[in-house]
Amino acid sequence: MHPEILKTLVTKTDSKMILLVMDGLGGLPVNGKTEVEAAQTPNLDRLVAENVCGLTDSIDRGITAGSGPGHLGLFGYDPTEYEIGRGVLEALGVGLEMTPLDVAARGNFATRNETAITDRRAGRIPTELNKKLCAKIADAIPEIDGVKIIIHSGMEHRFVVLFRGEGLDGRIADADPQTPGLPPKLAQALAPEAERTAEIANTFIRKVEEVLKDEHPANTILLRGFAKYPDIPNMEERFALTPAAIATYPMYRGLAKLVGMTLLDTGTTVADEVETLKEHWESFDYFFLHVKKTDSYGEDGNFEKKVAVIEEVDRAIPEILSMKPDVLVVTADHSTPALLKSHSWHPNPYLLVNRYIRPDEVTRFSERAFVHGGLGRFLAKDGIALMLAHAQKLKKFGA
Amino acid sequence: MHPEILKTLVTKTDSKMILLVMDGLGGLPVNGKTEVEAAQTPNLDRLVAENVCGLTDSIDRGITAGSGPGHLGLFGYDPTEYEIGRGVLEALGVGLEMTPLDVAARGNFATRNETAITDRRAGRIPTELNKKLCAKIADAIPEIDGVKIIIHSGMEHRFVVLFRGEGLDGRIADADPQTPGLPPKLAQALAPEAERTAEIANTFIRKVEEVLKDEHPANTILLRGFAKYPDIPNMEERFALTPAAIATYPMYRGLAKLVGMTLLDTGTTVADEVETLKEHWESFDYFFLHVKKTDSYGEDGNFEKKVAVIEEVDRAIPEILSMKPDVLVVTADHSTPALLKSHSWHPNPYLLVNRYIRPDEVTRFSERAFVHGGLGRFLAKDGIALMLAHAQKLKKFGA
Repeated sequence: MHPEILKTLVTKTDSKMILLVMDGLGGLPVNGKTEVEAAQTPNLDRLVAENVCGLTDSIDRGITAGSGPGHLGLFGYDPTEYEIGRGVLEALGVGLEMTPLDVAARGNFATRNETAITDRRAGRIPTELNKKLCAKIADAIPEIDGVKIIIHSGMEHRFVVLFRGEGLDGRIADADPQTPGLPPKLAQALAPEAERTAEIANTFIRKVEEVLKDEHPANTILLRGFAKYPDIPNMEERFALTPAAIATYPMYRGLAKLVGMTLLDTGTTVADEVETLKEHWESFDYFFLHVKKTDSYGEDGNFEKKVAVIEEVDRAIPEILSMKPDVLVVTADHSTPALLKSHSWHPNPYLLVNRYIRPDEVTRFSERAFVHGGLGRFLAKDGIALMLAHAQKLKKFGA
Repeated sequence: MHPEILKTLVTKTDSKMILLVMDGLGGLPVNGKTEVEAAQTPNLDRLVAENVCGLTDSIDRGITAGSGPGHLGLFGYDPTEYEIGRGVLEALGVGLEMTPLDVAARGNFATRNETAITDRRAGRIPTELNKKLCAKIADAIPEIDGVKIIIHSGMEHRFVVLFRGEGLDGRIADADPQTPGLPPKLAQALAPEAERTAEIANTFIRKVEEVLKDEHPANTILLRGFAKYPDIPNMEERFALTPAAIATYPMYRGLAKLVGMTLLDTGTTVADEVETLKEHWESFDYFFLHVKKTDSYGEDGNFEKKVAVIEEVDRAIPEILSMKPDVLVVTADHSTPALLKSHSWHPNPYLLVNRYIRPDEVTRFSERAFVHGGLGRFLAKDGIALMLAHAQKLKKFGA
């Protein structure tokens, strides 16, 4: 449904919804069974038998979603309409608090000589040195021409920088020659409105080189993935919801913040997250509950540990249900089959628990079984209308 | 398919199609079965076994359709493109004949004092008094500034008024303060083109107050839901069809007229409607046959009586088939589960009977079974292309 029409139909009610995301849940068979199928999930199976399910495409058929677009879709936004630039995602991933004034970029410490970039990763300097260099830069260059500089170290040669000020623009080509042996490349504006930001970025690079002039091999930096903090209408405005996020990893907390969720402090286990849900149950009507490790073990190719995380979530289901949510959705942002050790394009299981579902004949929490689900196959972004409908938060369209 | 493309593909042929709509057909389980599943439908079951089925979303996933958009979709129009305003729907519902010149509004008789509206429903005056007052107004105010005034009484305090004249515009905010105790509110144009219409509406209100000056409690009126008769291309133009409507209730007759159907006189039972179909079989190539009571009993929460109406339709199936339609579709405009006592967002059964169907494995007329139908799940508005195709009324797209 077109978002502008949906917006005219939403109403604020007391009903409460939970979106439980097992990151990268869907898999591919190893010895005949996917991770979801290999897992013992008596609680989820019972929910499947009594409720309705289907499969979602995160973006579209055949398209593998990154974490940003994968979650935007789940939150009810068209991921092809709202772009989250690489720099922003990186900044959210290291836990930087961003504001609408910010342009973010990913940085590399690198090595240069008089005329060329000789090593794009400065020999992968130790993380400890990275931290020291970032602190030195932060001290020396707190701002440029009224624009605040915020730098955050990452692993080895990587860091993130935020440029914070009025009128900045992220449409800037990478300050990175890509191939060692080529001369350093300046940041270049891709639109007239971005010229001042590009100048500031280039001033920053020059000043950093002064700070690092006695360092080796980290004597310069490359900046890539310039991106402005995206302007996304929040979930309150779009869906009349008061949403909260329960997530352990910074990137997912950042993504939730992009759409206006309140970030709740939580622990590191699924049980911790469920505890947080219970503590804050009265204060919100939409909870995004994020489980990361299904994806992490998928990326590692660790089939067994991914299965174990699914079983850990299954054990938490009764506790989640004890809150009596009006709608509970269990799904994923994309698939991460251990077999592929990466995100994949395969569709995501989608289970919807509610008292007004029209039942289907599926009885097992499994990608293969969900092909026959009563919700059919749909785009993840359309899940929000289903959730709102079942929570009786949508008015009739027309009379 | 985009309507402009579809239009280039349609051809006029002798084949005949029936769209049999059981209003609000789909339900939700009570004691494990929906209304459709609880009904004994041997004739429909046989058709399902020998033909092809699927599920439709009236507007989109999760969206509950009103009667207007629900039917527009079934007739092959995008319900989000053509809006039928509240006033128009009300006018059609009381059986007023509208023309493209008309702006319709819903009216309330109300009570006012010197400064405020004190009762928005004039104590819910008896319908008989309403009729007398409407007659008095019709007599006293036949026209205003060349615009014809047509007033039609409704139940208790409700009525409908049509403003008929050149250049009128329905973009007018309600002349209704909403909350008793507030001063009367004038009709207000929402676009410059609507200013004259708003002035006429306000003159009408003033003149009505003169007519009612000695009445109590009905001494003023409120006007809401201003809407112009929508400009919808008719089915002949769009689909090269000569369509007729067999419907008992005024609103559905009105909706059919909006898309250019000829309205056939009929009785009140399903058997009467089928008799009308047979009488007029030779004169049209598309018949919209509307059964209202599935919806009415759904709205009443009367599961058993809704089941009985479905069974009544099932008994009429052999008589309908005796006409040997090239295409028969049995479906609904939206769901109305007795459990919810209201329209709902759950998808509609869609059964297509034709000699060129590709069969599926479904054998039972049931929402749950239709999940597995060969037509899959689609938007109601796309059903027209399926009907036309199976009736061999569509040319090949491209060479």
